[in-house]
Amino acid sequence: MKVAIAQTNSKIGDFNANVEKIKGVLSQANADVITIFPELAVSGGPLLDMVSYNDVCKGASQAAERLCEEGKSCIVGMPVSDGVNVFNSLAFIVKGKPTDVATKKNLTCFDRSFACGNGFEITQYEDKTIAFGFETDFEDFVAKGQKADVVICVANSVFEVNKQQQTINRMIPLVRKAGIKFIYVNRCGGEGRFVFNGGSFVLNEKGILCDELSLLDEQTKFLDTETLKTFTQNPLCKIEKMYKAIQIGIRDYFAKNGVAKAVIGLSGGIDSALVAALAVDALGKENVIGVLMPSEFSTDHSVKDALDLANNLCIKHYLIPIKPLYDSALQSLDEIFANTQRGLAEENIQARLRCMVLMGVANKTGSLLLNTSNKSEAAVGYGTLYGDTSGGIGAIGDMFKEEIWQMARWMNRNGVVIPENSITKEPSAELSYGQKDTDSLPDYAVLDKILALHLESRMSKEQIVAAGYDDKTTEKVLQMVKRNEWKRHQCCPCIKLSSSTFGIDRLMPIS
Amino acid sequence: MKVAIAQTNSKIGDFNANVEKIKGVLSQANADVITIFPELAVSGGPLLDMVSYNDVCKGASQAAERLCEEGKSCIVGMPVSDGVNVFNSLAFIVKGKPTDVATKKNLTCFDRSFACGNGFEITQYEDKTIAFGFETDFEDFVAKGQKADVVICVANSVFEVNKQQQTINRMIPLVRKAGIKFIYVNRCGGEGRFVFNGGSFVLNEKGILCDELSLLDEQTKFLDTETLKTFTQNPLCKIEKMYKAIQIGIRDYFAKNGVAKAVIGLSGGIDSALVAALAVDALGKENVIGVLMPSEFSTDHSVKDALDLANNLCIKHYLIPIKPLYDSALQSLDEIFANTQRGLAEENIQARLRCMVLMGVANKTGSLLLNTSNKSEAAVGYGTLYGDTSGGIGAIGDMFKEEIWQMARWMNRNGVVIPENSITKEPSAELSYGQKDTDSLPDYAVLDKILALHLESRMSKEQIVAAGYDDKTTEKVLQMVKRNEWKRHQCCPCIKLSSSTFGIDRLMPIS
Repeated sequence: MKVAIAQTNSKIGDFNANVEKIKGVLSQANADVITIFPELAVSGGPLLDMVSYNDVCKGASQAAERLCEEGKSCIVGMPVSDGVNVFNSLAFIVKGKPTDVATKKNLTCFDRSFACGNGFEITQYEDKTIAFGFETDFEDFVAKGQKADVVICVANSVFEVNKQQQTINRMIPLVRKAGIKFIYVNRCGGEGRFVFNGGSFVLNEKGILCDELSLLDEQTKFLDTETLKTFTQNPLCKIEKMYKAIQIGIRDYFAKNGVAKAVIGLSGGIDSALVAALAVDALGKENVIGVLMPSEFSTDHSVKDALDLANNLCIKHYLIPIKPLYDSALQSLDEIFANTQRGLAEENIQARLRCMVLMGVANKTGSLLLNTSNKSEAAVGYGTLYGDTSGGIGAIGDMFKEEIWQMARWMNRNGVVIPENSITKEPSAELSYGQKDTDSLPDYAVLDKILALHLESRMSKEQIVAAGYDDKTTEKVLQMVKRNEWKRHQCCPCIKLSSSTFGIDRLMPIS
Repeated sequence: MKVAIAQTNSKIGDFNANVEKIKGVLSQANADVITIFPELAVSGGPLLDMVSYNDVCKGASQAAERLCEEGKSCIVGMPVSDGVNVFNSLAFIVKGKPTDVATKKNLTCFDRSFACGNGFEITQYEDKTIAFGFETDFEDFVAKGQKADVVICVANSVFEVNKQQQTINRMIPLVRKAGIKFIYVNRCGGEGRFVFNGGSFVLNEKGILCDELSLLDEQTKFLDTETLKTFTQNPLCKIEKMYKAIQIGIRDYFAKNGVAKAVIGLSGGIDSALVAALAVDALGKENVIGVLMPSEFSTDHSVKDALDLANNLCIKHYLIPIKPLYDSALQSLDEIFANTQRGLAEENIQARLRCMVLMGVANKTGSLLLNTSNKSEAAVGYGTLYGDTSGGIGAIGDMFKEEIWQMARWMNRNGVVIPENSITKEPSAELSYGQKDTDSLPDYAVLDKILALHLESRMSKEQIVAAGYDDKTTEKVLQMVKRNEWKRHQCCPCIKLSSSTFGIDRLMPIS
């Protein structure tokens, strides 16, 4: 059986664009090929509660008619209504005629407005029996012990740094048990804070890997299920995978929201330097605007490091010192601030004035503010709400500080992009004289490890201390994580990279 | 059978406080009474991913031991681990000895980290057969056709303005079918943006209402299942219900986050006036701070109306004109703003400077900023991110503008609290000279109806136009709703009042 795996990137609700993309792939396939598209390829997804509006099914149905006009054979995902309920469906189209539909049974949080369907379907295509359906329903199919020549399994699987191998490893024993050739077709591309994993793959009936498509990005691959061969993986390293996910996440967030340019506040520190370098790679240097906003608490090297970066990247940049604004703010608040000790309120004012300046630049230039917060500071609340936690999307918000240093070094592998001093100097928020992150936080080498145990491995304080960490430090870190939950509820969303992304994988009560 | 319905308000993770509360109720009950507490009364809830940490079950188990020491009989909700999985459980304790446990089977989004349990349990208590379990599992119990003398059904049901009657109406046919007396025990009180509905009730075996506890707040009621009588409801009107929910929402949000004082920006408009009046009722006038921040675009009556309000409410207030700050901001941005037309960027700057001032006051005084945005403006994005969309919790963010006017009039029923001019004047953001909301938006009388059809009834444009609304107006409103989804992802959470709360009931893709 001749098959094309079409690992595509759809746009939610843009039926015209999605149909044109699908038709483009179909035009490359001969009449005897079945082209397999991912879950919801016609409508884009995740659709969430868009499913509850009748125009989504109507649009999908009209789009499917246009696809049928091509007269080709394909399997393609779309929402389908039966007049009462809407199902996450997979249409089997043979030479332009719809013959069968599989509906998703085991729904995920993305499917919250879909009704529960029937799971895998089995259909006859020429001399082959084909079982087709959704990833979440494959286990049920295997449990039933049904037979087929080929299983076609579509997915909507989101990138996490270890996801690809986890998915393959999860499928292998199921495929072995079923004893059927297995084609897994996943979508790719970014959608809001999600980047879809791509990495479609083929296993033979013994569960041996016979093909794999590229991670995260579009690709179409033709194959014959009768002549499968063993395939050797050549996986990217962790930092390369994260880099690629951020690239596609930024690129598609801007493209799908119809914005070309990014604004970034450049402090001279490592976080904003890395984000600016990532943005230049994703959007082009002509589309990145840097804004330096030193205060009286900024050190000399901050401005120099930020200027070095802007020059290395060849990006447009502005220097807007915030001292006059800060003085004006303190004067306005004098009635309330008089005779109080300088503290958090004053520090936050600087961060909020910078947000106001950055959003002013973004609004005036039709750009989008890229957020530069990292996961370590989001975890412990080391940031100012409506200040440095703001922006359209966070580029590195799912990376711990130590991972940020690693990526910065990796980006400098062919020559200095990020100034060495931004990588090596001690981190500081520079909101008061001589301030260092370590005044309030443990060393990142310790902090990041405690956070990983707590956030990813879901260890309680007792378990973390038993793993060898200091009692007081652990207690302090966990208290900070808990106390700042409310802040994370209003932070800028960030591109998901891990299995413990705030706001997605770890939902906690506010109080 | 003698029963006490204990409609309690727990605090998440505060086992000591919850145990003391439960013991206090038990101490009022005689030895022959079974006291019924709501879902997760021991731990508080919703627990979300707190369930994945081992200290939650440990804390709950120790708390349950302390309850057993009382030697009383009760049914009480708590998380229980079997060493591998954690179940949302309901323990049946007879004279201080745990005898049975029901585990929740049909899980909700609140239960995302619980494992799927077994549903209703049936147990013998003296001469009675008691079926007990969770609201979501009751339908399955009825379908099985099992018999018992009494059904005890606990819940975790969140307030929506029509929820109480909907729940009773949903239960009546099920209870009739089962032909068993039915006791429904719901929790109450606020938790983050949720307010739990209370309104526990009793139906006899014919599905006739025999008792009902108060909406939203704590109450304990003793009854004998052998002597049930018909009960006549005396329901609150819609605005009274919303008022009570906001009261309890504000009260518990502050109390459970350990903050006493609220800061509110007073513009002289209806939204901030209503929120200030609600805050004074919920927290006391000594705990509310008003901040007036007029600009050059503010009208004279704005300041007068805001001062009248502050005087009516007897709250502390500050007057901080933002013109010096605004001038300073424009000067800082001159390089970028020079030779451009004054527009959205300049308007947003004012809103963001006000946010900076309000957060400065909140940070310095240890207060929490109460957000004053309404649902109509959140829907169409008529607000400034990191400006007027900021705050710890939104008091009226789930109310359409027309509902806000209704509530303001209702609050003035015994004399003027909210200045008449704030209610009757035409709404304006006052971010440019002579600006009116209707410059950018349809009249609220039309806007709110289109929004209700789109957000609550899930009507598409075609259906709304078919219902008699203008094509262009509908198109414009729906486009605004769609285009501003990203903004709502970072808005301050608001107290849930309706069945179409943003961020809870209606989740849409960002792009």
